Amino acid sequence: MKNIYVIGVGLIGGSLAKDIKEKNPDSVIYGIGRNQSTLDEALALKIIDKKATLEDVVNADLVIVAIPVDATVKLLPTILDKISDDALVVDAGSTKADICKVVENHPKRRNFLAMHPIAGTEYSGPSAALSGLFIGKTNIICEVEKTTFKLQEKALDLFKSIGMRIRYMNPEAHDKHIAYVSHLSHISSFMLGKTVIEKERNERDIFDMAGSGFASTVRLAKSSPEMWTPIFRQNKDNVIETLEEYINNLTHFKELMTNNDYDAIFNEMKNTNHIKDILKGIS
Amino acid sequence: MKNIYVIGVGLIGGSLAKDIKEKNPDSVIYGIGRNQSTLDEALALKIIDKKATLEDVVNADLVIVAIPVDATVKLLPTILDKISDDALVVDAGSTKADICKVVENHPKRRNFLAMHPIAGTEYSGPSAALSGLFIGKTNIICEVEKTTFKLQEKALDLFKSIGMRIRYMNPEAHDKHIAYVSHLSHISSFMLGKTVIEKERNERDIFDMAGSGFASTVRLAKSSPEMWTPIFRQNKDNVIETLEEYINNLTHFKELMTNNDYDAIFNEMKNTNHIKDILKGIS
Repeated sequence: MKNIYVIGVGLIGGSLAKDIKEKNPDSVIYGIGRNQSTLDEALALKIIDKKATLEDVVNADLVIVAIPVDATVKLLPTILDKISDDALVVDAGSTKADICKVVENHPKRRNFLAMHPIAGTEYSGPSAALSGLFIGKTNIICEVEKTTFKLQEKALDLFKSIGMRIRYMNPEAHDKHIAYVSHLSHISSFMLGKTVIEKERNERDIFDMAGSGFASTVRLAKSSPEMWTPIFRQNKDNVIETLEEYINNLTHFKELMTNNDYDAIFNEMKNTNHIKDILKGIS
Repeated sequence: MKNIYVIGVGLIGGSLAKDIKEKNPDSVIYGIGRNQSTLDEALALKIIDKKATLEDVVNADLVIVAIPVDATVKLLPTILDKISDDALVVDAGSTKADICKVVENHPKRRNFLAMHPIAGTEYSGPSAALSGLFIGKTNIICEVEKTTFKLQEKALDLFKSIGMRIRYMNPEAHDKHIAYVSHLSHISSFMLGKTVIEKERNERDIFDMAGSGFASTVRLAKSSPEMWTPIFRQNKDNVIETLEEYINNLTHFKELMTNNDYDAIFNEMKNTNHIKDILKGIS
């Protein structure tokens, strides 16, 4: 795969570009994006070799779509329209159902592979791109059977070469589960940040008291609203369900406190402690 | 300060013992605790030099009380009863109002300094003790004026020698603010862990999808229920207030989603993004 076009040269697109270039020094990485300044930044950081436009994907062996999920839904059919018969298109979105749906009847559906690499940080843009980001990270592939076998093989070789662990899942299961282990965490973090900032307006000193525990729980509140608003919109029903369960659990905890039922509060925490074992290996 | 007695040789007591011993090689660190096995572990880890009992604090130059806050409230008057006139007693509890209250009329009140070092990890016990844990960390001191000047001076020299930044606050303000930047984070994390674990009962694969963002937001759910139940009990009113505000913010977010008001959701996140600047320097 010589000619690689990355649409969206931010955290995920940029990190993929870096690792792929390192493993395939002969490839040429082209960057495509709405903002010339972002592309210039990616060029300066040597994340991409050249700037390109959407028309150029006709020359692509591989197109990586790493833009907000609403933009992916809009753009993906057009990209498939433009590519050659042998090209592979992958996306990296945090939702999978709407993205798979929009191309389900596209004549080039078999050139597309839907994926979600579970990797990233709370930062965004080309400067957030990291070498080796995907080593040991899970990449969830949806509807693998809908991609032509030859392109599946190429894609998997590439993913394994940059260290990814592969898991297969259908788009609906992906969106349901990811709401729990990713989307809900972002909301809990944003609302925790909001609750404390609201307080802080009158109490500037409060953050002097914040330690690493607070920093850890609000880390995701630094995430990009441009990226996350469309994720919540596309995964609305699942996210609302997780949010309701979370609010119910918090309300129950509050009631236990109101009723001075500290034995029950102890047990709530004790029963959740085994998250330790579950999280082993995730850092 | 030669004879130093540490009551509770866990994460905080053990870390203080390590740093103090390093800065004062001539001191002798005595460990006191309910469980002989914990003391033996601390001895094996060279966190303490010798085991001791509560009766021995009569020989102390310094007593560090680093046990759950309910135990501190029970034990602190007895400790003050037993010490010599020149000894300093400090506690390290996450709540300050009840602890200050229980000794306010004690004849040896001036031998006590109430503090809360904002440092720690989600782990507990002697094996969780870390050298250098307090470097650059805030240590909040309450009611400093109630401690005799000579002992204040000794304490501050010691705290500064192990790298702490000192802040002064009254116990009520401490308990109110710490509810926001620490206690609420723990509840948000525990309930997030609970919400996901409840789901996981039927869906073992879900944690294969968890990334570093989830790990970060549930990190505090590994914390010790023995330590945290009494903290929530002592800071009940403040914690319930923060919890109500947090639940209201989450409920509002859910309503915005239900109403498809994604512009407002974008703004909720954008307005909270400046937590980036607030958290600079906290890791």
